[in-house]
Amino acid sequence: MSPFRPAVDAIEGYVPGEQPQETGWVKLNTNENPYPPSQQAIEAIVGKANDRLNVYPDPLARGFCQLVAEQMDLDPEWILPANGSDENLTILLRSFVEPGEQIACPYPSYILYETLAAIQGAGTQRLLLNADWSFDFAAAERTIANSKLVLVPNPNSPSGTKWSHDDLLRLVPPKGVFVLDEAYGAFADNPHDGSVLQSEAGRRIVMTRTVSKAFSLAGLRFGYAIAHPDLIRGMRKVKDSYNCDALAIAGATAALADTEWLTETTAKIRATRRRLSAALAELGFEVTPSQANFVWVTHPDRNHQSIYQSLKENRVLIRYMQYPEAPAFGAHGLDGLRITIGTDAEIDRFLDVLRIVLGRDSTSNV
Amino acid sequence: MSPFRPAVDAIEGYVPGEQPQETGWVKLNTNENPYPPSQQAIEAIVGKANDRLNVYPDPLARGFCQLVAEQMDLDPEWILPANGSDENLTILLRSFVEPGEQIACPYPSYILYETLAAIQGAGTQRLLLNADWSFDFAAAERTIANSKLVLVPNPNSPSGTKWSHDDLLRLVPPKGVFVLDEAYGAFADNPHDGSVLQSEAGRRIVMTRTVSKAFSLAGLRFGYAIAHPDLIRGMRKVKDSYNCDALAIAGATAALADTEWLTETTAKIRATRRRLSAALAELGFEVTPSQANFVWVTHPDRNHQSIYQSLKENRVLIRYMQYPEAPAFGAHGLDGLRITIGTDAEIDRFLDVLRIVLGRDSTSNV
Repeated sequence: MSPFRPAVDAIEGYVPGEQPQETGWVKLNTNENPYPPSQQAIEAIVGKANDRLNVYPDPLARGFCQLVAEQMDLDPEWILPANGSDENLTILLRSFVEPGEQIACPYPSYILYETLAAIQGAGTQRLLLNADWSFDFAAAERTIANSKLVLVPNPNSPSGTKWSHDDLLRLVPPKGVFVLDEAYGAFADNPHDGSVLQSEAGRRIVMTRTVSKAFSLAGLRFGYAIAHPDLIRGMRKVKDSYNCDALAIAGATAALADTEWLTETTAKIRATRRRLSAALAELGFEVTPSQANFVWVTHPDRNHQSIYQSLKENRVLIRYMQYPEAPAFGAHGLDGLRITIGTDAEIDRFLDVLRIVLGRDSTSNV
Repeated sequence: MSPFRPAVDAIEGYVPGEQPQETGWVKLNTNENPYPPSQQAIEAIVGKANDRLNVYPDPLARGFCQLVAEQMDLDPEWILPANGSDENLTILLRSFVEPGEQIACPYPSYILYETLAAIQGAGTQRLLLNADWSFDFAAAERTIANSKLVLVPNPNSPSGTKWSHDDLLRLVPPKGVFVLDEAYGAFADNPHDGSVLQSEAGRRIVMTRTVSKAFSLAGLRFGYAIAHPDLIRGMRKVKDSYNCDALAIAGATAALADTEWLTETTAKIRATRRRLSAALAELGFEVTPSQANFVWVTHPDRNHQSIYQSLKENRVLIRYMQYPEAPAFGAHGLDGLRITIGTDAEIDRFLDVLRIVLGRDSTSNV
């Protein structure tokens, strides 16, 4: 007899995007920032590596919280650092959702939320999106009313689209907590701010952010939640005491302080995003206008999976994604390709290989 | 109405030992190793800080697993790296214990297990220890039979005592999993090995280890579980995808490879432990013979809490601990002082201040 909880035996486990550990790949599959992080972040890490690593870190990472608080004009008690946004999402499920209860999240969207709910023994109700990636609020109303957590990435993945604050506030569950996952928020033309927390429903909203994407520090594992102190206090009880390591705290703090680096880097990514989107449209793809560091495309008459596969054979890695139960997108749901914004050289290489792939496939179809 | 789970509202939250962030303290309260980590570990961290931190780490830390597997003559599938042993303990609770079920752990012992069970909505049955820190197996039998997890630190905290493998094997729950928390295993006169996993009950045993203590890397947050692949596979489904950061993986791998550093450092700590134990006995304390990097002492006629407080006023931090419901130790249970093994200079300073504190209190009692 298995000693595991039935919920654990029942799930497959979340499968993250491929992470080849060897170099030589054009890696446009897991939404990493292609640029090296702020030199100040690297120096802070190197400094900390030589400074009392034998001692436990500050369990609350108060220096980091102080910096975010100053930047957002909030009290430090509003901030909860974690071992990546993943840990904050796990903490949210464990804080607010009992086994047998339900969460809600948009679909097509980030599939991890469903896995985290399943591990907790909870169910997921999907908020099926319209074909233009908007919410069907009439259909969503009852689901939201019955949910303990509603989790929404903004910008969304895989679409890269962004919902307005007014739209988001309509999703706050009356008996639960709304989680606004802003992993990609810094790449929007108008980057995110904290104003949604100042709304009437603000006391039941948790924003999550990360240094993985915008700050080029996916290797660090550092994210943070922003919410009313009543929520943060309870979430702190659920987190592991020393959930963030000393190097990550040092690196993340220096990275956030280097606002010039962020402005320059996100501007480069937005410029490359425009160029990539235009090139893909020229190649016949339907390109969803993106506010994130990736673009979602479909092709009216090519097989998406075989494009992905042909690129991979040429050591260019993008993401092929399938959402079979999305009726607004068609009888078989939606599938397509998500391409992370790389450096200009990486995107050139991707486009070169893509043109060959499309040309060759086209020839072979004759 | 609180949106939190009732179990979360009900708990106080685990309070870790004090972590003053300023220097100038003799810090002997949270069982950190007083020596700097292996220079090879620091160099590996510095190297990694300059090497593609923008990219996600290997979700399974396979290089680390390979090294442990070689050192222990096991397959890498037996190893689960985590964000500190704390995360592995959390993963164990979430993998094996349903709300309403129960865990068991010795008492007096590491109190975090009870907090983790409470967060999961589970109960804790204490295995009350005899006054010589041995198990009362007759009294424990039914509790063990009804437990999904039995968690035992070996050496134990606060006592520093170590149970034999034969004793431990009697604690494996027939319908659950036995967790052998070896955070302090490397400080024993005969350091731990993996032989308990080769027993008949081995398929239901999980060993947890950490680089925080033995390897002087508490700042890193890196631990690992060792268990049969059937158990590791299920636990992997529960962990966050990228639970270990790239710097911690690099540092921990280099630290474990530097076996010479470990041998030298643990020998120094054992030597200081002998010297400290003798000095405390000479000052009238009852010293429990320790196999860990701390010693547990009581004094027949001094107030433990005021000794702790007087030391703290002199910027010497040790741990005052209370276990009120331990009848074998007396009608009011047990209280006493746990002193981490520091450097020789730190221990000298501690003993100097302690002598003053004891002398002054004695004078003031006249």
